[in-house]
Amino acid sequence: MKPVAGPENWYDFAIRAMNTPVGFAGENRAMIKTPYLLFLGDAPDQLSGKVAQGIKDWRPDHAVGQYRMEGCKADLGLTDMSLVEAREAGARTLVIGVANRGGFISPEWKKVLVMALEEGFDLASGLHNLLRDEPDLVAVAEACGRELHDVRVPEVDYPIANGVKRRGKRCLPVGTDCSVGKMYTALAMDRSMKAKGMKATFRATGQTGILITGDGVPLDAVIADFMAGSIEWLTPDNDEDHWDLIEGQGSLFHISYSGVTMALVHGGQPDALILCHEPVRQHMRGLPGYDLPTLEALRDTALPLARVGNPDCQVVGISINTAAMGEEEALAYLAGVEARLGLPAVDPFRQGADRLADALAAL
Amino acid sequence: MKPVAGPENWYDFAIRAMNTPVGFAGENRAMIKTPYLLFLGDAPDQLSGKVAQGIKDWRPDHAVGQYRMEGCKADLGLTDMSLVEAREAGARTLVIGVANRGGFISPEWKKVLVMALEEGFDLASGLHNLLRDEPDLVAVAEACGRELHDVRVPEVDYPIANGVKRRGKRCLPVGTDCSVGKMYTALAMDRSMKAKGMKATFRATGQTGILITGDGVPLDAVIADFMAGSIEWLTPDNDEDHWDLIEGQGSLFHISYSGVTMALVHGGQPDALILCHEPVRQHMRGLPGYDLPTLEALRDTALPLARVGNPDCQVVGISINTAAMGEEEALAYLAGVEARLGLPAVDPFRQGADRLADALAAL
Repeated sequence: MKPVAGPENWYDFAIRAMNTPVGFAGENRAMIKTPYLLFLGDAPDQLSGKVAQGIKDWRPDHAVGQYRMEGCKADLGLTDMSLVEAREAGARTLVIGVANRGGFISPEWKKVLVMALEEGFDLASGLHNLLRDEPDLVAVAEACGRELHDVRVPEVDYPIANGVKRRGKRCLPVGTDCSVGKMYTALAMDRSMKAKGMKATFRATGQTGILITGDGVPLDAVIADFMAGSIEWLTPDNDEDHWDLIEGQGSLFHISYSGVTMALVHGGQPDALILCHEPVRQHMRGLPGYDLPTLEALRDTALPLARVGNPDCQVVGISINTAAMGEEEALAYLAGVEARLGLPAVDPFRQGADRLADALAAL
Repeated sequence: MKPVAGPENWYDFAIRAMNTPVGFAGENRAMIKTPYLLFLGDAPDQLSGKVAQGIKDWRPDHAVGQYRMEGCKADLGLTDMSLVEAREAGARTLVIGVANRGGFISPEWKKVLVMALEEGFDLASGLHNLLRDEPDLVAVAEACGRELHDVRVPEVDYPIANGVKRRGKRCLPVGTDCSVGKMYTALAMDRSMKAKGMKATFRATGQTGILITGDGVPLDAVIADFMAGSIEWLTPDNDEDHWDLIEGQGSLFHISYSGVTMALVHGGQPDALILCHEPVRQHMRGLPGYDLPTLEALRDTALPLARVGNPDCQVVGISINTAAMGEEEALAYLAGVEARLGLPAVDPFRQGADRLADALAAL
């Protein structure tokens, strides 16, 4: 952000970048071809198949079947298929929907992945161990004309944010902490809004969201100067009555990741914020000694910052993760929050997101 | 920031990263060897030698001499030296202190740079066109055992911020906009504090600052998840009475770069903030239609955010760039700001930074 010297400085660079037209999400990036065969490998337990579970829960029409190896302890309740059966059922991409200890690609997996490429599947993975770093997979993919998608790595040269208002509307969930249910909230709102006949698109900003939807921005891996621009790119001009539901990341109160959250608040130019919270946390995730802020503090911090980019922004609802509470306790807590903040407060998992969707419709 | 699945998710990754000891600035990074021969090449005008000027102004003991080619229109008032003379005078690194149109490395420069490597100089550059992308320079540098420093590119695997309080004190200038004098303010305070016998270190976070000091973090080029961690790394444990003066970047109110600024506010854990402002701006730099915030709005936004990382943080002073004002107008403006905000308000260029240094000493 600091001019270097004379004619060639960061601002000239920025201004050039600002003049680059902001494209449409997916442009310059090979979208992951759907539908998927969900690879569970030798999953040690059900939890390790969480990515595959997310795809099956939120995009069931993307999930043709599951591929399980000997000793697999996860089961999505989908049809077990061989590679050939899945191809015949129309699957285009084998998605590694499982994480093993260490996130590496085991030799046992390798055999299946190579066969999948030879059978005509693309591969998609969110593992730390990148597919593109495996010479044998790269060689076979090239020989077979297949694509390898490592969703941890940006595949687009994002512009620097230009702050120009886009047509259409945008909603961003912001959290008191990381991992309090922001992605789940946006996906549940997307489902509810589509059921109501509203125009909505979930915009993924993290690895799981990208594998669920087949596209998005892996924001935590974007270069600092281009974070806000990547979110402008992800949420381009759209119909006036269309809502982008942007997957949130981090928290303005989480010192490790707050810069990423800030880029969403400014790059997303949200018209609506949803406050997300998990009541039982003892401290900020991964930060012993850091207390969670109140929902009021989150509202009073996030809204003025959001209004820098969009003066009309409103806080329209609250999403609480009450997984750790019994039904009565949860409903009492939600009623209390609703009374305190004067906004609809729901747990989308218990109650669905219809009231949050209605709050957007009422804007 | 979103867990991917099971045992191998971003949080495990983050927690592992948090357990990596935060090193000392310069660790894993070859510091640029001083003193420098400042290369002005065929600079078209004085302004294009701004980086070299900054080095000469702020680190005169680093500037052995200047190297000017035929037709050079810039002059630092340093001794013109040949490569051999500069070597004999002790210069270790030839710093490209000039920007040419397009930021590329011209064939005329190339001849000098290759000779410099052969004469035993390292090379350092902040150009967009990287030294490491020039095969001939790379080959000659390897053959001669010399180093190429491209200060636009991070050379360290930074940790994810762990938020643990470090010993020693830290000061961060924050601006109402980009490029309002944050670097100049920190450098002027560093000089003033050293003159007063205080323990101070200027911590560079941008390309110019890195070339001036020989080390730092090119924050705008760091991967999103590691921004705050890179600033923790840059400002490690120190003597209780030592001040890190952290070079600011961007602005919390500049939607293109606010995420980078946020990472400084949280990664730096500042004990003191300096508010920086340029009174004559018509709109935010590069963002027509975006008004600058008031100094009060900057104070009321930056301080609560800084207190998330350091509850004892204070706003201690104000730095105004009055370059566009006459002496009387400038002094009247500064007096007005000082009365309005109840804090010392100075233009470090006109008046020096002694009063800001005193404000830190008084904390």
